[in-house]
Amino acid sequence: MSQKLQVAVAGVGRMGMRHARHFATLTPRAELIAVCSPVQSELDAAKAEFGCRTYTDYETMLNEEKTLQAVVVASATTVHAEQAIKAIERGLHVLCEKPISTSPEISQSVVDAYKASIKKFPSQKVICGFSRRFDASYRDAHARMAAGNIGTPSVFRSQTCDKLDPSGFFVAYAEFSGGIFVDCSIHDIDLALWFFGEETKVKSVTAIGITAVQPDLRKHNDRDNALGIIEFYGGKIAQLYCSRMMAAGQEDCTEIFGTDGKIAINTQPQLNLVNLYESTGIRREIPADYYGRFREAFITEANEFTASCLDDTKPPLRLDSAVKAVAIGCALQESLITGKKIEFDGSGKRVEVSHL
Amino acid sequence: MSQKLQVAVAGVGRMGMRHARHFATLTPRAELIAVCSPVQSELDAAKAEFGCRTYTDYETMLNEEKTLQAVVVASATTVHAEQAIKAIERGLHVLCEKPISTSPEISQSVVDAYKASIKKFPSQKVICGFSRRFDASYRDAHARMAAGNIGTPSVFRSQTCDKLDPSGFFVAYAEFSGGIFVDCSIHDIDLALWFFGEETKVKSVTAIGITAVQPDLRKHNDRDNALGIIEFYGGKIAQLYCSRMMAAGQEDCTEIFGTDGKIAINTQPQLNLVNLYESTGIRREIPADYYGRFREAFITEANEFTASCLDDTKPPLRLDSAVKAVAIGCALQESLITGKKIEFDGSGKRVEVSHL
Amino acid sequence: MSQKLQVAVAGVGRMGMRHARHFATLTPRAELIAVCSPVQSELDAAKAEFGCRTYTDYETMLNEEKTLQAVVVASATTVHAEQAIKAIERGLHVLCEKPISTSPEISQSVVDAYKASIKKFPSQKVICGFSRRFDASYRDAHARMAAGNIGTPSVFRSQTCDKLDPSGFFVAYAEFSGGIFVDCSIHDIDLALWFFGEETKVKSVTAIGITAVQPDLRKHNDRDNALGIIEFYGGKIAQLYCSRMMAAGQEDCTEIFGTDGKIAINTQPQLNLVNLYESTGIRREIPADYYGRFREAFITEANEFTASCLDDTKPPLRLDSAVKAVAIGCALQESLITGKKIEFDGSGKRVEVSHL
Amino acid sequence: MSQKLQVAVAGVGRMGMRHARHFATLTPRAELIAVCSPVQSELDAAKAEFGCRTYTDYETMLNEEKTLQAVVVASATTVHAEQAIKAIERGLHVLCEKPISTSPEISQSVVDAYKASIKKFPSQKVICGFSRRFDASYRDAHARMAAGNIGTPSVFRSQTCDKLDPSGFFVAYAEFSGGIFVDCSIHDIDLALWFFGEETKVKSVTAIGITAVQPDLRKHNDRDNALGIIEFYGGKIAQLYCSRMMAAGQEDCTEIFGTDGKIAINTQPQLNLVNLYESTGIRREIPADYYGRFREAFITEANEFTASCLDDTKPPLRLDSAVKAVAIGCALQESLITGKKIEFDGSGKRVEVSHL
Repeated sequence: MSQKLQVAVAGVGRMGMRHARHFATLTPRAELIAVCSPVQSELDAAKAEFGCRTYTDYETMLNEEKTLQAVVVASATTVHAEQAIKAIERGLHVLCEKPISTSPEISQSVVDAYKASIKKFPSQKVICGFSRRFDASYRDAHARMAAGNIGTPSVFRSQTCDKLDPSGFFVAYAEFSGGIFVDCSIHDIDLALWFFGEETKVKSVTAIGITAVQPDLRKHNDRDNALGIIEFYGGKIAQLYCSRMMAAGQEDCTEIFGTDGKIAINTQPQLNLVNLYESTGIRREIPADYYGRFREAFITEANEFTASCLDDTKPPLRLDSAVKAVAIGCALQESLITGKKIEFDGSGKRVEVSHL
Repeated sequence: MSQKLQVAVAGVGRMGMRHARHFATLTPRAELIAVCSPVQSELDAAKAEFGCRTYTDYETMLNEEKTLQAVVVASATTVHAEQAIKAIERGLHVLCEKPISTSPEISQSVVDAYKASIKKFPSQKVICGFSRRFDASYRDAHARMAAGNIGTPSVFRSQTCDKLDPSGFFVAYAEFSGGIFVDCSIHDIDLALWFFGEETKVKSVTAIGITAVQPDLRKHNDRDNALGIIEFYGGKIAQLYCSRMMAAGQEDCTEIFGTDGKIAINTQPQLNLVNLYESTGIRREIPADYYGRFREAFITEANEFTASCLDDTKPPLRLDSAVKAVAIGCALQESLITGKKIEFDGSGKRVEVSHL
Repeated sequence: MSQKLQVAVAGVGRMGMRHARHFATLTPRAELIAVCSPVQSELDAAKAEFGCRTYTDYETMLNEEKTLQAVVVASATTVHAEQAIKAIERGLHVLCEKPISTSPEISQSVVDAYKASIKKFPSQKVICGFSRRFDASYRDAHARMAAGNIGTPSVFRSQTCDKLDPSGFFVAYAEFSGGIFVDCSIHDIDLALWFFGEETKVKSVTAIGITAVQPDLRKHNDRDNALGIIEFYGGKIAQLYCSRMMAAGQEDCTEIFGTDGKIAINTQPQLNLVNLYESTGIRREIPADYYGRFREAFITEANEFTASCLDDTKPPLRLDSAVKAVAIGCALQESLITGKKIEFDGSGKRVEVSHL
Repeated sequence: MSQKLQVAVAGVGRMGMRHARHFATLTPRAELIAVCSPVQSELDAAKAEFGCRTYTDYETMLNEEKTLQAVVVASATTVHAEQAIKAIERGLHVLCEKPISTSPEISQSVVDAYKASIKKFPSQKVICGFSRRFDASYRDAHARMAAGNIGTPSVFRSQTCDKLDPSGFFVAYAEFSGGIFVDCSIHDIDLALWFFGEETKVKSVTAIGITAVQPDLRKHNDRDNALGIIEFYGGKIAQLYCSRMMAAGQEDCTEIFGTDGKIAINTQPQLNLVNLYESTGIRREIPADYYGRFREAFITEANEFTASCLDDTKPPLRLDSAVKAVAIGCALQESLITGKKIEFDGSGKRVEVSHL
C-alpha cells in the first residue's frame, strides 16, 4: 500500500473528534498525526483516544508538524476561513467544515487564496465538507437524475429539521451561526446547486419565519422555523424549510421533481430497519441528530478526500460552489428578517427593485 | 326512516355525474330527482343511470321541481356563483363545487346572498365542497391537532400534484380556471385555514413558478409548477406546491408541524395495500387522479350535507372560509405573475408597500 | 332502475347488524325487509334503525315474508347450516357467513342441498361470505397474479392476527368456534385456494401451537397462537399463522411468491394515511378489528351478491370451495392437537401412514 | 493504542476477500498478515490489494507465520471444521464462517476441540460468524426484547430469500451446501435461538418444499423453496421460509411476536433511502445479495472479534449455539426430504415415534 496521508485536525469539539476518529481509524489510507484546540480537556481526550500529538495553537501545529499533508478545519465557524487560508498558503490540502464562513465575502477570500495557491501547488485539494454529497442515498438520487431518469429536474424541495433542544443552546448559538438559513439550510442549498447544476444562477429569494418555541432567537435576528423559495435562471425553482423544533428527531428530506418523474430521499425517515408493534400502533424511531443520519457519509468524505490528495485526482466537490451556497443562505436570511424579496441579475449582482 | 332529501344536480359532466351517483345510490337519506345540463348526451346518460328527470335549463328545473329541497352545483366554475345564488334566493339548500368563483368579489356575493336569505329561511344550508374536509385521514389529523397532540400548529406544508396530462387539456382549461393556485392549491389553502383556525388572517403571500412541460400556459398567465409561501398573523406560516406534471399519479400530501410534534397525511401515497416485488425492486401504484384519492370523502360529503339539511344541524363547513381561500389563491396567483410579494394589514386590506 | 332485491337477515348480533346496515343503506339495489333473532333487544335495535319487520323465529320469518328473495345468514355458526338449508330448500338466495359449519360433513350437506335445489330453481345463488375476496387490495393482487405478473404462484404465506382481548371472551368462544384454524385461518385457507386455483388438492397439513396468553383455551382443545404448513399437489406450498394476541390491532397480511415475482398485501398495515411524529418516533395506528380492515369489502360483497341475484349472473364465489376450506381448517386443527402430520391422496381421501 | 491483532484469512474467494478487506482496512486494531488459498489467482488478487503474504497450503501458513494470532476460516464449507480444529489446537483465535459443517457431529467436534484447547489457552476465542448477530437492527430488536418491551417472546417468523440466479449455480452448489435449510435458514435458526434463549430446546421440526424454478436440485435432495415449523420446549414456536427465487433481490426479514407486542426487522426492505416516482408508480430497490444487506454487520463482526481477542473479553457469541443451529437445520432438511415430522425429547435426543 502507498504511504498514508498525514492529517491534522483543527478543533476537536464534538464534530472535530468525530473527524479525528474517522481519519484515525476508519480511513485506511490516512494517519492522524496531530490535533489542536484551545481547550486542554479536548486535547487530552484526543491524545488518550488516538495517541496523536496535540497543540493549543494552530500555527504552532502547522510550523512543527513537518510531515503534515492535510488539515481538517473543524473549529468554530468564526475561524474556519482564517485557519483554512493559513493552511492553503502553506500548500496543505484542506477539508473545511461547512460553512466556510457566514459571510459570502470571507468565504470568497478562501476561494481566492486557493486560486492563488494552486498555481504554486498544482496538486493541492481544498474542499468544503458538505457531507450529504457523500451520502449513498443522495448519490444514488443524483446518479439517477444525471442519467436522465426524471427528465429535466425542475422543482427542488428540501428541509432540514433539527430535533427540538429545549436547553436554550440554539439561542446562544444563534449569535454566531449566521442564522438558520446559513446554519441549517446551507446543506439544502448546496444540494439544490448540485442537482440543478453548479453553474445555475439564482434569480430571486424570499423567506418568512417565526419563533414558535424560542422567542429569544429574535435578539440575534434569527427564527426557529423558516420557509424560503428560490428562483433560478433557466426555469428552476426551489422550496426550503428549516426548523429547530422537530419532536421526533432529525428529519432531513429532499425531493427532486423532474419533467418525467420524481426522486424522493428520506421522506420516510427511520433509525434502522426495526418496526415496533405496540398497543398504540406501529412505531419506528428516527436519528436524533445529523450525525445519526450522516455518519457513513462523513466516513466516505474522509476516505475520498484522502484518496483525492494521495492520488492527485479531482476533488469530490468544488470549492466555489460552497461560496455560492453561503451567498444564497445569507440572502434568504436577510429576506427572512427584512420581509423583502431579493433579486439578482443574470451576472449574480443584486438588483434593487422598486416595487411601487 | 325520515323522508329523503329531494336533490337535483346542476351540471352532469364528469364530476357532476359522480355527485349525482353519490346522492342517488350512496346517500341513503337522499333522493336524486332531477339533473340539468346544456349537453343532451349528459342528460341521456344521467336518465339512463338514475331514472331522474332532466332539464337543459337550470331555472326551468328550479321552477318545475316543486318538491326540490337541495341543489348540487357541479357545473362549469364560471356559472357556480350565479346558479348558487338563484337556488339560495329560493330558500334551497346548496352544495356548491369549489371554487365558488375564481373572483373573491363574486365569491363574496354568494356569501352575501346566503346571509340575506337565511333571515327568511333560517334552516337553509349552503356549503362549498372542499372534499378533503370529509376525508377520514384529514379528519383524524385535525382531531389529533385539536386535541393538542402536536402543541401549537405553526408550520403548514401542503401540495397538490396532478398527474401529467400531455394532451394539452390544461392549456385550454387555464383560460377559465383562475390559475394553478386557485384551481389546485385552493384545497391546500382551505386546509391551512382549517388547521390554523378559520379566523386566522393572512399577512403576506409570495409565489414563484415555471412552465416546465406546458409553455403555452403562459398565454393564460398560468404556470405548470408553482411554489407559494404564506405568512399569517399570529406566528403561523405555510408552504404550498402545486404541479401539473407528476409522473406517478395524483400526489396530495400535507404536513402540520406543531411545537410538540408533526402530523403527516399521505406522505407515503398508495393506491391500495398491494406491493409488487419485481426484478426492478418493490413498487406500488398511486391514484391516477383526485377522485381516486378522495372518492370516499365525496360520499361522506353527500351524506353529511344531507343530514345537515334534513336535521337542521350545523353545516359541516363554513361558507365564508371558502371566500377567504379564493382570496388567498388569487393573491398567490397574482404574485406568481407579477413577481411581487403581496401584503395585508390586520383587517385583511391589502397594503401597497414601497420596498425601496 | 329495476326492482330491489328483498332481503332478510338472520341473526342481528354485532356482525348481523352490520350486514343489515350494508343491505339497508349501502346497497342501492337491495331492500332490507326483515330480520330475525332470538334476542329481543337486538330486534328492537334493528327495528329502530331500519324500520324493518322483526321475528324471534327464523322459520316464521321465512313463512310470513311472502316477497322475500334472499337471506343473509349471520347467526351463530352452530345454526348456519340448518338455516342456510331451510332457505335453500325454499329457493331463496343465500349469503351465509363463514364458516358454513365447523364440520366439513355438515358444510358439505349445504352444498348438497344447493345442488339439489338449483335443479328446481336454476337462478338460485348461494355463497359463503369470504369477505377478503371482495377487498380491493386482494382483488388487485389476484388480477395481477392471474395476468401472469409473478409467473407461477408457488408459495403462499398468510396470517390472521386478532388484537389481544384480555377479557377471556375467546376462551368461552373456543367451545363452539371450531378452533383457531377454523375460525381465523379459514380466510387465509380460502385465499390460498383462490390464488392457487380452487381445484388445487391438498397433500398434507401439519400444525403446531401454544397458549401464550390464554392457557384456559386448552380446555377446548384450542391454542392462542398456531402455525401451519400445507402441501398441495402440483408443487405449491402454504404457510399460515393465526394469533389472538396482537398488541397493535388486527394484522392480516398475505404474500404470494411466484416464479417471477411476489405480491404482498398489507405487509405495512395502517389505519389510514396519517403518520404521527412524536418525541418517541413516528407512529401510525392500525385497525382494531377485521371490520376496521374489511368494511368496504363487506359492502362490496352485499352489492355484488345483490347484483348476481337480480341479474342472474355468476355468483362472485363458489360454494364448494368453502367446504374445502373448512376441511383443510379442520385438518390443521386436528394436527395442532394431535401433533401428527395429516396426509391426503390425490382424490382428497385421508391417508393413514405409518411413520415407522 | 495497543498492538494490532495479527490475522490470517483462509480462503479468499468472494466472501474470504471481503473478510480480508474488513480486517485489513476497516478494523483499526487488526492487521492482515497472510492469506491462503489453493487458487493462485485469488492469492494474486489478495497480494495486490493488501500486500500480505500468501500461501497455497493452510498448514504451511500456520507453521510459517510465527506472529499469527487469529485465523478467519472462509474457505469451502467442507474444510471449515478441519481448518478450524488445526488452528484451535495451536491456540489461535478463530472466526469460522457459518456453518461450521453441514454435519452436526463434525460441528460438535470443533466445539470439543475448543473445549479441550481452552484449558491450555484460557484466553482463546473461537466463534462462528453469524453475521446477523452484529447487525444494528437485529441488535436493537434483541435489546428491546431483552428489556421486556414485547413481554414473553413466543412466536418467531423469519425468512431468507435469495435473489433468483438463473445460471444454475445453486444446483451445483447444492451438492455440498447441506441443503437449503442448512445453507440459508441457518441464520434464521440462529436468530430463533438468540431471541428465545440459547438454552431453548427443540421439541419437533417439520418441513415441506418444492422445486419451482430449479427441478435439478432434486438430484442433490434439495429444494428451491421450503417451509419449516419448529416447536421448542417451553411454549415457543418458529416458522421459517427459505427461497432461491426472489425476483427483487435479497429479502431477509424477521418478526418476533411477544405476549405484549411484536418487533419486525426489515419487513419493508430497501436498498437505501431513495424512492423513485415513475409513470408506473413508486419504486425502491432492495439489496441484490446478503452482503448488500449485511456489509456493516460483517465489519462490526471483525472489529468485535478483534477486540475480544486483544482484550480477552467474552466473545460476542457462543460456539455451542452454532452446533445447535446446524442440528436443527439438518433435521429440517431431513424432514423436507422424508416428509416426516422429527421429534426430540427434553434431553435433545431424537424420538422415534409411531404415528399409528
